[in-house]
Amino acid sequence: MPVGLSAPTELPPVAGVRLGVARAGIKKAGRRDLVVMEIVAGSTVAAVFTRNAFCAAPVEVAREHLGSGDPRYLLINTGNANAGTGAGGRHAARRCCTSLATLAGCPPRQVLPFSTGVIGEALPVEKIEAGLPEALATLRADGWVEAAHGIMTTDTLPKGASRTVDIGGAEVTLTGIAKGAGMIRPDMATMLCFVATDAAVARPLLQRALVEAVNASFNRITIDGDTSTNDSCVVVATGQSGVTLAADGAALRTFTAALSALCEELAQAIVRDGEGATKFVTVEVAEGISSQECLQVAYTIAHSPLVKTALFASDPNWGRILAAVGRAGLEHFDILPVQVFLGDVCIVRDGGRARDYTEAAGQAVMARDEILIRVLLGRGAACERVWTTDFSYDYIKINAEYRT
Amino acid sequence: MPVGLSAPTELPPVAGVRLGVARAGIKKAGRRDLVVMEIVAGSTVAAVFTRNAFCAAPVEVAREHLGSGDPRYLLINTGNANAGTGAGGRHAARRCCTSLATLAGCPPRQVLPFSTGVIGEALPVEKIEAGLPEALATLRADGWVEAAHGIMTTDTLPKGASRTVDIGGAEVTLTGIAKGAGMIRPDMATMLCFVATDAAVARPLLQRALVEAVNASFNRITIDGDTSTNDSCVVVATGQSGVTLAADGAALRTFTAALSALCEELAQAIVRDGEGATKFVTVEVAEGISSQECLQVAYTIAHSPLVKTALFASDPNWGRILAAVGRAGLEHFDILPVQVFLGDVCIVRDGGRARDYTEAAGQAVMARDEILIRVLLGRGAACERVWTTDFSYDYIKINAEYRT
Repeated sequence: MPVGLSAPTELPPVAGVRLGVARAGIKKAGRRDLVVMEIVAGSTVAAVFTRNAFCAAPVEVAREHLGSGDPRYLLINTGNANAGTGAGGRHAARRCCTSLATLAGCPPRQVLPFSTGVIGEALPVEKIEAGLPEALATLRADGWVEAAHGIMTTDTLPKGASRTVDIGGAEVTLTGIAKGAGMIRPDMATMLCFVATDAAVARPLLQRALVEAVNASFNRITIDGDTSTNDSCVVVATGQSGVTLAADGAALRTFTAALSALCEELAQAIVRDGEGATKFVTVEVAEGISSQECLQVAYTIAHSPLVKTALFASDPNWGRILAAVGRAGLEHFDILPVQVFLGDVCIVRDGGRARDYTEAAGQAVMARDEILIRVLLGRGAACERVWTTDFSYDYIKINAEYRT
Repeated sequence: MPVGLSAPTELPPVAGVRLGVARAGIKKAGRRDLVVMEIVAGSTVAAVFTRNAFCAAPVEVAREHLGSGDPRYLLINTGNANAGTGAGGRHAARRCCTSLATLAGCPPRQVLPFSTGVIGEALPVEKIEAGLPEALATLRADGWVEAAHGIMTTDTLPKGASRTVDIGGAEVTLTGIAKGAGMIRPDMATMLCFVATDAAVARPLLQRALVEAVNASFNRITIDGDTSTNDSCVVVATGQSGVTLAADGAALRTFTAALSALCEELAQAIVRDGEGATKFVTVEVAEGISSQECLQVAYTIAHSPLVKTALFASDPNWGRILAAVGRAGLEHFDILPVQVFLGDVCIVRDGGRARDYTEAAGQAVMARDEILIRVLLGRGAACERVWTTDFSYDYIKINAEYRT
């Protein structure tokens, strides 16, 4: 059951982008599993990819194609990640690009491939090829919700978000979709995100805006740049609104803020739909010397299976949070000024349980679906937030049975 | 259900050490929860403690007492960790030491306190004081098995081991007990270990031998020195065998090897009895540039919830192992020479699934209770091993319900 999340019923189109979906039977018959995004000529495209040393074949091919031409098509399949598949996997990814390019009448390097699903099985290229005509035949500007369905794996709900911003009196639209239910830890599932805007943005500016947005969103539900073999986040700027963003100034800041907000909504949606999630948890660590140490503490809490099982049990077992703070490995760490809060309830102060803390007060916070764990380190001005979920029976069930 | 582990039926006594057990009703009535270890005068004692910044009150007091006198008594309670209890907790730990010292007729600084159990609740000092006479009345040289029972928390079986070694024609005995069922990650539970030998060993030598033994055993079921708030490992050398170990030479090496083997058996027993464990898993990483990078890869695999749930499902989902290797963060990491084995079955080679790998072969290995995951990095001569378990429904159950 996703926490505080519902499926988008409509997502505003972005001029210059059309999406088509097919049922190619890649893993299961009858499921939407193949998506094509068509991008108008003259668009710019920026992307960030996984840093996993074993990156998937489509990531290698997408990086290569992005470096050598202006993309006109994104080709996305679920059901098979085409990862850990060696040279054969790269060949398969290229063949899919070539097949789409042939049907669409463009060079193969103008197609970027993306895959998500089981690792290490050969990509069923023939099935994908057989699905391409349907995907192209269904291309339409308002295909975003269908596409959000078409990129799901263990997600229980499709994920989409949109923003409109006023830039110099003109309206600019940003719309995006994402998938990735298993982001309880960064290695748990592929995160894919595709965003488009009708603003005109030069590629270096678009890349910079994307890195800033991803850093404040998807990289806050993942640790130390750790990523799965297939993670990819792409933003397309079609320029069809006629609004061009200059290299500096308010317009670019407005755009970057909107892109960040959109990515944050999608990143949170991924956490809310985390595998087996029953809680949506924000871990905020403030008063640190640096962002880096705040993140270090936040991730140690967010990844502790003991904290996560206590959250599942709605048990204010603050001792597990305290133990996680203590083992986060901060240099010259004095515990006396540290304060820990569950929501507004102070649970730790003066090196131990806060004197005015009551189990009833902690219990009231833990009973909620959305929980804030807040740590004040008392030694600086840096602050960071990460988002995570609890660890439930269903998490084990989903991940133990995923391949069967 | 512990994996390949049974309760010790008898443990050889160590001359100069007696153990007594009481039912003090600390958390539940009728359970053995208080242990006193009496140490003959003239013994030496070495110890290693948690590095958690929020270390428990008994750890602070034990460190302090160990620095100021020759210990004559170890006082161990389960049911309450006396951690996160601030100044009041230190006072409570000292009061317990004083009460035992008064009954035993020694200064309080000759008592070392140890606690394990729930974090953050006040230690029930009166109950412990009320249990002390029974613990002292039951002191006996062959009390090791009873004591192993008396230090358990969520352990399903008591853990003990012993070794005898021939040193210069004389027999030296080492016997030890341990507890700590929740060591799937290092923050999961307190690990306590108490070992005694009848050899005479000067304190600096004993400390060095202990650090070496712990490093090869308990620190291989924990990450980066991360520890819980209460972890402690103590070794007592009574000298009652008349065998004195010199500062260098074969005798000390023989002794250290026996101590390491004993600690390894106890550390593995903790993993075999891991909360909800259905598998005992050895992760071996070889051909690394350094021990450090081998451990980095080994722990990334051992801590991956995705790998752990696949182990629970007996699913040879080698893609999850490969993804963990890829995200371990090695510098200048070339994936082409990397090989990964499940038991004797090669699953990854040449950057992807091994060509001769079959699902049936992987399945046959995964069906076993004891599984070896072996990674060859192909870039050096270092090798390390860590031990872990799978992630099961029972793990969630035990940790979600621990306080209720």
